[in-house]
Amino acid sequence: MQDKLYAAIDLGGTKIYAVLAENGGRILSSVRYDTQADEGPEAILEQMATSVREVLAQAGAGPDRLSAVGVCLAGFFDWQRRFLIQSPNIHGLEQFRVEERLSQKLRVPVLAENDANAAALGEALCGAAQGSQDVLYLTVSTGIGAGLVLGGQIYRGTRGFAGEAGHMVVKPDGFLCGCGRHGCLETVSSGTAIARMANEALQSGKAALLRELARQQGGMVSAATVFRAARDGDETAQEIISEAIYYLGIALVNLVNVLNPEIVVIGGGVSAAGEELFVPLEKAIQNYAVPPAAASVTLRQATLGVEAGVRGMLCLLAEAENGRDG
Amino acid sequence: MQDKLYAAIDLGGTKIYAVLAENGGRILSSVRYDTQADEGPEAILEQMATSVREVLAQAGAGPDRLSAVGVCLAGFFDWQRRFLIQSPNIHGLEQFRVEERLSQKLRVPVLAENDANAAALGEALCGAAQGSQDVLYLTVSTGIGAGLVLGGQIYRGTRGFAGEAGHMVVKPDGFLCGCGRHGCLETVSSGTAIARMANEALQSGKAALLRELARQQGGMVSAATVFRAARDGDETAQEIISEAIYYLGIALVNLVNVLNPEIVVIGGGVSAAGEELFVPLEKAIQNYAVPPAAASVTLRQATLGVEAGVRGMLCLLAEAENGRDG
Repeated sequence: MQDKLYAAIDLGGTKIYAVLAENGGRILSSVRYDTQADEGPEAILEQMATSVREVLAQAGAGPDRLSAVGVCLAGFFDWQRRFLIQSPNIHGLEQFRVEERLSQKLRVPVLAENDANAAALGEALCGAAQGSQDVLYLTVSTGIGAGLVLGGQIYRGTRGFAGEAGHMVVKPDGFLCGCGRHGCLETVSSGTAIARMANEALQSGKAALLRELARQQGGMVSAATVFRAARDGDETAQEIISEAIYYLGIALVNLVNVLNPEIVVIGGGVSAAGEELFVPLEKAIQNYAVPPAAASVTLRQATLGVEAGVRGMLCLLAEAENGRDG
Repeated sequence: MQDKLYAAIDLGGTKIYAVLAENGGRILSSVRYDTQADEGPEAILEQMATSVREVLAQAGAGPDRLSAVGVCLAGFFDWQRRFLIQSPNIHGLEQFRVEERLSQKLRVPVLAENDANAAALGEALCGAAQGSQDVLYLTVSTGIGAGLVLGGQIYRGTRGFAGEAGHMVVKPDGFLCGCGRHGCLETVSSGTAIARMANEALQSGKAALLRELARQQGGMVSAATVFRAARDGDETAQEIISEAIYYLGIALVNLVNVLNPEIVVIGGGVSAAGEELFVPLEKAIQNYAVPPAAASVTLRQATLGVEAGVRGMLCLLAEAENGRDG
């Protein structure tokens, strides 16, 4: 008899990434599309189903070999009532029963999870935090989110909404956030915030080096551009990066004080900045967290990149399978 | 055969409170002393042992009926290595092996725990949060501490230092904290902070009503005095209370966003202010936490008072006993 196969999908606001894997976790095939984020739930469902058929076809495997599918997605997934309350990036997914609907299409069980939770579990079980029981995973990208693995398992909170670290208020008199509040961490430390502050500086005529880099990129300023300009000595870019890291440091200190994690893993696009991000964050934790908690935590860059979410989902599927067998 | 008996001790910086209870939790006797906080570990140990002998004598029970003792205490208790790293209130308890030492004196097993953790469990199992699985307990008193009960069990973090909510930085440019950092929650929202701000106001000649209340109390200003003056219309007192509650609200919002608790319980002396504290805090959570997390949380005043810690210890002892039996 041939081995069972599992598909895992990471449904993001811009990309949908799907993989097919063997029982042991070896990935056989993968696809990546742009998400049809504006075309409603039916289109999204069809896209997810297509991605699964595609990874099966790539691996030369018939649909009968597919045992289960895992989907992780951005948004408030109510893990008790099993539906997505709302997604910040994909419209029309309110009260969306993704498990039930995708299961009807693919005729296999479907398991859904918040994407930061899935990525946290992925990093905890087969990434940067392998072997750790209490893991805080932070993704710093367009937005900022967190996933908690406590005592070796995803901690979801009472309904599934734990980990909204991007909306920790760190600068009460700060910029207005998309969520309607002022001074959320996302408004000062996300990739979007860094780019926004850079654009403001350019409009006020500052940051010559940053301007030149932006010109070379056709006028586009991303967080990566700002990190590069800072590295090359642009003082305005350095100030912007410093401010972003300062508030991210405060949030991390607060999380370390409350959770006493064994390890903090930072992923997402902004984490690619490497030591320019990690050295000052490490310093913030060591200087500002309570000493015994600071002494027992390790800060590390994520290692799984875009695979973190699907890796986590494959682990959850294996767990669910063992639960059913046992 | 007579029932086994259990003693539980709450060792605080100012008071030591001990109870004797039956297996089912019924409290038979209790004592309360001033803690000999400056006389070193041997005196503290002897005081704890005396308190246990005293509750046994009060109940007319011989020492042979004592089955185990639980001790909860303020400070960093390393739950893996089983010793107290340090206590903020009682000097000389560095690297203190309280379980081993007290067990030698009393000839029964001794179990130790951080006091906020024990109080959180007490409130979760037989107080304000009865029936809830994910509980955030916050004590607002001289200092501010937190205990987390997640999935029905104490969450301690990797080494036992979780719950240091009093040292969440909420006002980075704020007052210097005893821990060496600026703007910790304790420096703006604890009873001590409220009294400090009131004294500063009095020295600058403000707050006539508060001054009169203070005079009636022989010059002493406590947080309770400030709440009373605010209630009676003293504007300076109202500003002080507002600022304290504002920052406590930010900390709560951040904790609700990260942990998605089912219930937040607030205890400690300052919680006695009742609705003057709870109404604005409830408003802060509803207005500033992410809506799905705000919608799924209940805020409640602690109900066990000074019994919370010993109640939690009695539950832990019963759990340990069942573990041994099973």
